[in-house]
Amino acid sequence: MGVPMAAHVARTVPTRVWNRTFSRAEAHAAEFGSTAAALEDAAGADVIFSCLPTSAEVDACIGQMLPFLRRGAVWVDCTSGRPAAAREQAARLAEVGVAFVDAPVSGGPAGARAGTLAVMVGGDEAVFGRVRALLDSFGGTVLRVGPVGSGFAVKAVNNVLMGLHLLSVAEGLASLKKQGVDLAPALTVLNASSGSSFSSQNKVAQQVFTRQFSPMFKLGLLAKDAGIALENVQEVQGSAPLIAQTAMMLRAAQQMIGSDVDHTEAVRLLEALNGVELS
Amino acid sequence: MGVPMAAHVARTVPTRVWNRTFSRAEAHAAEFGSTAAALEDAAGADVIFSCLPTSAEVDACIGQMLPFLRRGAVWVDCTSGRPAAAREQAARLAEVGVAFVDAPVSGGPAGARAGTLAVMVGGDEAVFGRVRALLDSFGGTVLRVGPVGSGFAVKAVNNVLMGLHLLSVAEGLASLKKQGVDLAPALTVLNASSGSSFSSQNKVAQQVFTRQFSPMFKLGLLAKDAGIALENVQEVQGSAPLIAQTAMMLRAAQQMIGSDVDHTEAVRLLEALNGVELS
Amino acid sequence: MGVPMAAHVARTVPTRVWNRTFSRAEAHAAEFGSTAAALEDAAGADVIFSCLPTSAEVDACIGQMLPFLRRGAVWVDCTSGRPAAAREQAARLAEVGVAFVDAPVSGGPAGARAGTLAVMVGGDEAVFGRVRALLDSFGGTVLRVGPVGSGFAVKAVNNVLMGLHLLSVAEGLASLKKQGVDLAPALTVLNASSGSSFSSQNKVAQQVFTRQFSPMFKLGLLAKDAGIALENVQEVQGSAPLIAQTAMMLRAAQQMIGSDVDHTEAVRLLEALNGVELS
Amino acid sequence: MGVPMAAHVARTVPTRVWNRTFSRAEAHAAEFGSTAAALEDAAGADVIFSCLPTSAEVDACIGQMLPFLRRGAVWVDCTSGRPAAAREQAARLAEVGVAFVDAPVSGGPAGARAGTLAVMVGGDEAVFGRVRALLDSFGGTVLRVGPVGSGFAVKAVNNVLMGLHLLSVAEGLASLKKQGVDLAPALTVLNASSGSSFSSQNKVAQQVFTRQFSPMFKLGLLAKDAGIALENVQEVQGSAPLIAQTAMMLRAAQQMIGSDVDHTEAVRLLEALNGVELS
Repeated sequence: MGVPMAAHVARTVPTRVWNRTFSRAEAHAAEFGSTAAALEDAAGADVIFSCLPTSAEVDACIGQMLPFLRRGAVWVDCTSGRPAAAREQAARLAEVGVAFVDAPVSGGPAGARAGTLAVMVGGDEAVFGRVRALLDSFGGTVLRVGPVGSGFAVKAVNNVLMGLHLLSVAEGLASLKKQGVDLAPALTVLNASSGSSFSSQNKVAQQVFTRQFSPMFKLGLLAKDAGIALENVQEVQGSAPLIAQTAMMLRAAQQMIGSDVDHTEAVRLLEALNGVELS
Repeated sequence: MGVPMAAHVARTVPTRVWNRTFSRAEAHAAEFGSTAAALEDAAGADVIFSCLPTSAEVDACIGQMLPFLRRGAVWVDCTSGRPAAAREQAARLAEVGVAFVDAPVSGGPAGARAGTLAVMVGGDEAVFGRVRALLDSFGGTVLRVGPVGSGFAVKAVNNVLMGLHLLSVAEGLASLKKQGVDLAPALTVLNASSGSSFSSQNKVAQQVFTRQFSPMFKLGLLAKDAGIALENVQEVQGSAPLIAQTAMMLRAAQQMIGSDVDHTEAVRLLEALNGVELS
Repeated sequence: MGVPMAAHVARTVPTRVWNRTFSRAEAHAAEFGSTAAALEDAAGADVIFSCLPTSAEVDACIGQMLPFLRRGAVWVDCTSGRPAAAREQAARLAEVGVAFVDAPVSGGPAGARAGTLAVMVGGDEAVFGRVRALLDSFGGTVLRVGPVGSGFAVKAVNNVLMGLHLLSVAEGLASLKKQGVDLAPALTVLNASSGSSFSSQNKVAQQVFTRQFSPMFKLGLLAKDAGIALENVQEVQGSAPLIAQTAMMLRAAQQMIGSDVDHTEAVRLLEALNGVELS
Repeated sequence: MGVPMAAHVARTVPTRVWNRTFSRAEAHAAEFGSTAAALEDAAGADVIFSCLPTSAEVDACIGQMLPFLRRGAVWVDCTSGRPAAAREQAARLAEVGVAFVDAPVSGGPAGARAGTLAVMVGGDEAVFGRVRALLDSFGGTVLRVGPVGSGFAVKAVNNVLMGLHLLSVAEGLASLKKQGVDLAPALTVLNASSGSSFSSQNKVAQQVFTRQFSPMFKLGLLAKDAGIALENVQEVQGSAPLIAQTAMMLRAAQQMIGSDVDHTEAVRLLEALNGVELS
């Protein structure tokens, strides 16, 4: 995700890119006109973007860059992170005069390339204003949804709903197959009906029926995001039975199928529970 | 639903309409060029359409019309019915030489008026061929999904998914509100993201945030459809945890809120469980 | 179950036993002092007991015996049957002047041998009075719980709760094992605490930890009973989220593990979902 | 709980008791032969017992006592706490040479008075050995279940199972009532059958059918414990669908009914979902 996002930023303002593997930064510079920078140089930017697997990696990255950060800078974290981590990161950065917004994205590599990502921003209105043009460079729908952590909270809900929609259409199709229904036309007509979802429209015919399951977004990461959504529900003493069940089912799928497969392979859990293949 | 559907049919072939309240049939005739008919005359048509609240009403209607049906006719039931009922109805009609297809629809009154309904058809390929042009008169996506009962099976899955998507986005929003997130931009960005669904896009801002809940499709009927979906899962010894939970939650909502309110009021269940209002 | 139950009855009143395999009836007669009888003779008794796998077998048995039944007799069905089937069976038998009570039992082969079964009776108070002494011959707790069908309704709830308790203690133990807790003392102390259940006390150390899973009560039958409980909930438009989920999990277990294994093997579902063995 | 537990300890060894309200400590001393002590004196004991509502209060208490603790002492926490908190508390105390075991209890005030509590201990074998006699003074079943935190982990599972059993028997009874079954004999026979549990045997006839709901153990605390159990499942990436659902239902009950009522009032949630009263 980070590669095309940084390319859009580089088209807007002079941009330094840093990567643990320096040659990847150099490749980005060569292709998109950014500048490959050492960590300490990248850390001196006015706006710093991070986009990592989990909040733990962001914590580590902040730790490395902390001595080199410039007072008055803004750190924009596009990771699908934990709201509680965002609040701690914001506090830690505030001590060295750096503002923080969480700005996770949805739309996948295709949306990143097209510059049409949905961006859900948590942070102060004023800080958001300072980085908005840069977010707009790769985003289509860019909205502030509340204080620091709110972006991560919305992203976690988005991802658990995406997983829930995938699992639930798989449940429906598994039951239909056992009832002798033809799945291909059934899915087509569902997708023209009120029971459709992003997941049913974009994942089932493409990944499940073809049995391709091309790795795009890892099952382990989706299970992690669903876990964050449930953790957030628990923190505010909320009650979300369907989200809770989805989190449990995705962990089970991860356990039975693997962490590194595409998240759409989670349907294999329901295939196992029903003794059918969705094809 | 039946009024605009019959209007489309009447534009395609000479059409007799029957209603328990004869003046309603006359009004249809006056407005759409159909012919108001007595039950025994309507029963003599080549193709008979029924569109009633449940399979029980269809059973009653078949009983009334049975003596007047014409051998070689086709009965098309657009009710959101039970697959087991469809199989019994088909057998009963076969005894008098009448074929049966179940052809429930999705798209609501607007889709019915526009002639763009999704129609999911269960029945023999040949019988489907004989009524296809009439189904196309009010349908946009018209597909045969399997043998008799398959249409009802798919419709039940569609409706339980629609209800599930509504309940699950309400769960997510309730938890976000308790976390201090602004719901309006959160919904907008969810609807531009991978967690979106027909329900999140068409029902939440429109019905829930406005607290309008205009009665369109009754909660009691949605709970009934979810119950059919679960009954179908049980009949084939399937396992559909999310569908089962949705059926239970919709019955609870019906119990607590009422049968005759719009189905979108089901979100009040989650508002009660979380102590927040989604607005 | 039927063998020791009929033995107790035979100790109380002259008893004819019938079995599809006549030699089994003869063996019973030889061991317990009953009389092996042909179907038509058995059908002429004052009180008829049936104890079969499902209501379908009882329907078939009633069909075979119907011509030979004696007006004024009572049919006592100890099957774990469906309440709706009980009502139909009662109506069918009433036409030939035979009363019906459903009287399913709990307590297993050991309770049957000891004559301490719990018996939950659905039927008219007066009819119950006529067979009570016979039920007492094999029962410890014998109670009328309501009109015809009520016994089956209570039995279905009992069995789904038993299954639910088994699955839930397995969930808890699986999570404890992943947390590094020693399962044997954990179970012992749970069984001395408020979270204990019949299932946790009688099945886990005995069947699960030993990995014996001696076949006593088939998983397929437990899944069937849970399905009946859920069907009953649906029939009265009730909401029972935990029962629904248990029914779904037991069907999944049956699908993944098999119908004919002991029901305690259902814990293998949770072992798979968690990647641990409960031992 | 703490009062009778400390009374048993005081019968075994010289015991100082401390309470924020000194007169309560004095009352204990007068009645049970302990010594009312100032916080700094209590903190100097060889073995320190704490029994508080949540881990947060224990953290505060450790903070206050830390300067006065004696190197070589053992801190025994009988709170229903969080395993993660136990590990942090153990580390914090280790810095001043104090060992820690978590030793939550089950059995209620009656078990505490009788000295028959179940005690589930997490900590080093050797440390457990040093306090075992004291735990035996109020415990009936006292078992080490694993390293620090394990006691809390088992207690959380125990409590969520207790809540689950209560909710599930309420589901069953609500459905039976809607089916026209008599609840009193139905419960009696269930309690003599394989679907029984501690909750069904000790809470339903006593608290629910009588509508007394005498406050013993607060609903808010049970919901907290269920939340801990679910948090623990999530931490080890486990899958526990029934535990997750129970945690959600208990939070909903707390939201709808209140935090300070007896936990058995949680059945009111299912009464609301089903539109019946369990009486």
